[in-house]
Amino acid sequence: MNNKLISSIKPFYVMEILEKAQEYERDGRSVSHLEIGEPTEQIHPLIKKEAKRAIDDNHDKYSNSLGLIELRDLISRRYKSDFNLDVSTEKIIITNGSSAALILALISILEKDDEIILIEPYYPCYPQLVKIFGGKIRVFRTSSKDGYQVNLKKFKDFLSSETKAVIINSPSNPTGVSQNKEVIEFLSSLDIKIISDEIYQGLNYLDNKDTILNYSAEGIVVNGFSKFYSMTGWRLGYLIVPEKYIRVIQKLQQNMYICAPTISQYAAIGALNITEEDISMLVLSYRKKRDFMMSSLLDMGMDIGYMPDSSFYIFANMENYCTNSLDLSLDILDKVGLGVAPGLDFGPSFKKYIRFSYSSSFENIEIGLGKMKEYIKEYK
Amino acid sequence: MNNKLISSIKPFYVMEILEKAQEYERDGRSVSHLEIGEPTEQIHPLIKKEAKRAIDDNHDKYSNSLGLIELRDLISRRYKSDFNLDVSTEKIIITNGSSAALILALISILEKDDEIILIEPYYPCYPQLVKIFGGKIRVFRTSSKDGYQVNLKKFKDFLSSETKAVIINSPSNPTGVSQNKEVIEFLSSLDIKIISDEIYQGLNYLDNKDTILNYSAEGIVVNGFSKFYSMTGWRLGYLIVPEKYIRVIQKLQQNMYICAPTISQYAAIGALNITEEDISMLVLSYRKKRDFMMSSLLDMGMDIGYMPDSSFYIFANMENYCTNSLDLSLDILDKVGLGVAPGLDFGPSFKKYIRFSYSSSFENIEIGLGKMKEYIKEYK
Repeated sequence: MNNKLISSIKPFYVMEILEKAQEYERDGRSVSHLEIGEPTEQIHPLIKKEAKRAIDDNHDKYSNSLGLIELRDLISRRYKSDFNLDVSTEKIIITNGSSAALILALISILEKDDEIILIEPYYPCYPQLVKIFGGKIRVFRTSSKDGYQVNLKKFKDFLSSETKAVIINSPSNPTGVSQNKEVIEFLSSLDIKIISDEIYQGLNYLDNKDTILNYSAEGIVVNGFSKFYSMTGWRLGYLIVPEKYIRVIQKLQQNMYICAPTISQYAAIGALNITEEDISMLVLSYRKKRDFMMSSLLDMGMDIGYMPDSSFYIFANMENYCTNSLDLSLDILDKVGLGVAPGLDFGPSFKKYIRFSYSSSFENIEIGLGKMKEYIKEYK
Repeated sequence: MNNKLISSIKPFYVMEILEKAQEYERDGRSVSHLEIGEPTEQIHPLIKKEAKRAIDDNHDKYSNSLGLIELRDLISRRYKSDFNLDVSTEKIIITNGSSAALILALISILEKDDEIILIEPYYPCYPQLVKIFGGKIRVFRTSSKDGYQVNLKKFKDFLSSETKAVIINSPSNPTGVSQNKEVIEFLSSLDIKIISDEIYQGLNYLDNKDTILNYSAEGIVVNGFSKFYSMTGWRLGYLIVPEKYIRVIQKLQQNMYICAPTISQYAAIGALNITEEDISMLVLSYRKKRDFMMSSLLDMGMDIGYMPDSSFYIFANMENYCTNSLDLSLDILDKVGLGVAPGLDFGPSFKKYIRFSYSSSFENIEIGLGKMKEYIKEYK
């Protein structure tokens, strides 16, 4: 067994919460889930329709390794209509979820022991994937007092001659913050590669939808259909890469994945045909949930200290209530039946934080926040 | 860019044939495809039904990272009914195609520069994946005069103290041969790990369906739904691992894939409920195609020299016709509009061989073989 690698891969602490929650549920206790970063929205009927049509029409064999050309074209046109950007279809590669997009990007750029900068708090998979593919991690910390924006001066000083790339995630899991234009512009001006994980793109509540491609044609975009279109189980993502990477990524794709799931690719064509009106309603509904959760948490006296403007997360500092939020999360679950995500998953500096997700129904959020209020009142 | 790795990843030569074939087809020429290792059979109605039901019922979010328990249970029961083996559901992990199963297995066992033995001719992805994940390749050659069986004596001498594992593929792509009981038994007795790629399991025409688990509980099984059930585009496979690997693989799965496509998992439940009668008819139809292709090729005077007994491939020695079968394949395509797979993809020792696939319809096979006959008669 590859003991060295394996012992370096950490479990997700949120899984401990989830497993405990499931145990309680099996015992008949009702649990509210604000720990899960997965939209519970039903998918749009157009997505179902296209998927079922593909099944009926037997369009279920391997696709081209780069993906269905119709889907790649639609994505290209989307960048034109959303950002007035010309993104050639050639540069768009359909992948098995955004996980695969990230892996393909990492393998393409990483040489053994290359240094990759992560912006803390970060999506928990980043450090693990960098480790699996042989890179070295350096963690650049952001904080609520800067609104979780990257401090440009500090970042410049933080860079080393060994730095190969930075992974940014804007909008962010777990903070629900998008990096400012100035930050992205600055990062794009540096002589390092940027992997820009834009999986929450479009879930923006400040008219601040953005992409690295607005600043640099050299940026590598990771995106997908899981979050915005609630298509998590369909495992469909995409990569946009500079032209010189296309052949390389294609070779890796052929060997590692063959192609993305074909039915899911047709389903995604359905997703990209959803009307503007339906899309606006979806974004508005998330925005209302954000507003409600934010004001409820502030009413309880939670220390948040910034305004989340995108994705579906709020990250709260719980240092007044705990020394380790994993214990706190387990206690909240135990006392009032509410699941929240412990901050340690998102980086060691945030072990006193917890992440609340508003990806579920308004009703669930309301019940969950009621439980949180009860917990604070009764037990703290 | 990771230039060292990237330049070491070879393109598939068969892709050159395919691309050329598509070019001809765009120009209006009719091409017969015997180069493709993908079943063209329509999937069984039960598979469609379960997939569509899952879509209607909104069972399309992330599944458990190990896979749907119902599906894992069905696979476990299948090992009981097929082989009278008790394979615990715990040890079965559902993956994004058998590609992911192989990758998870490799990462779990490989440490940098570990030696992995491949049996030549081999599935073209094996050497590439071993390279991507940092292993060293040693190639053990088999030949038609041994019926592509592993020679036990030679293999024993071939082992080094550095050997970590061997990858076997029985039934095999490209030879269409299953390793004998004695071979598998012998390999299982050695002090190395065995990754047993059993993706063609069940496509056996000599009542020789088998699994490494009949010989060793330590064997790692890679399997999936693509070949037997013609579900290539659904990207669904599975791994069976010794208990000690489960946690490790789960951690890797969570980070690298999250889970296998959920709709595909429900579709696979449909596949495992297909009646014995329908399964027998499927196997019989492949067997008839094998018989027809084999006798046609022998009639043309092809040098095959062994009896393919499984999967859907026949591997022919073309040294009387070429010094490099890639050129030969391109010439066959050009002269008579027939695609075949050049042997170089399956290992350097086989660069004068070509692989014929009988995974398409009887009619296509008949037309394709007619073209081959014409080529031999007119041009050689």
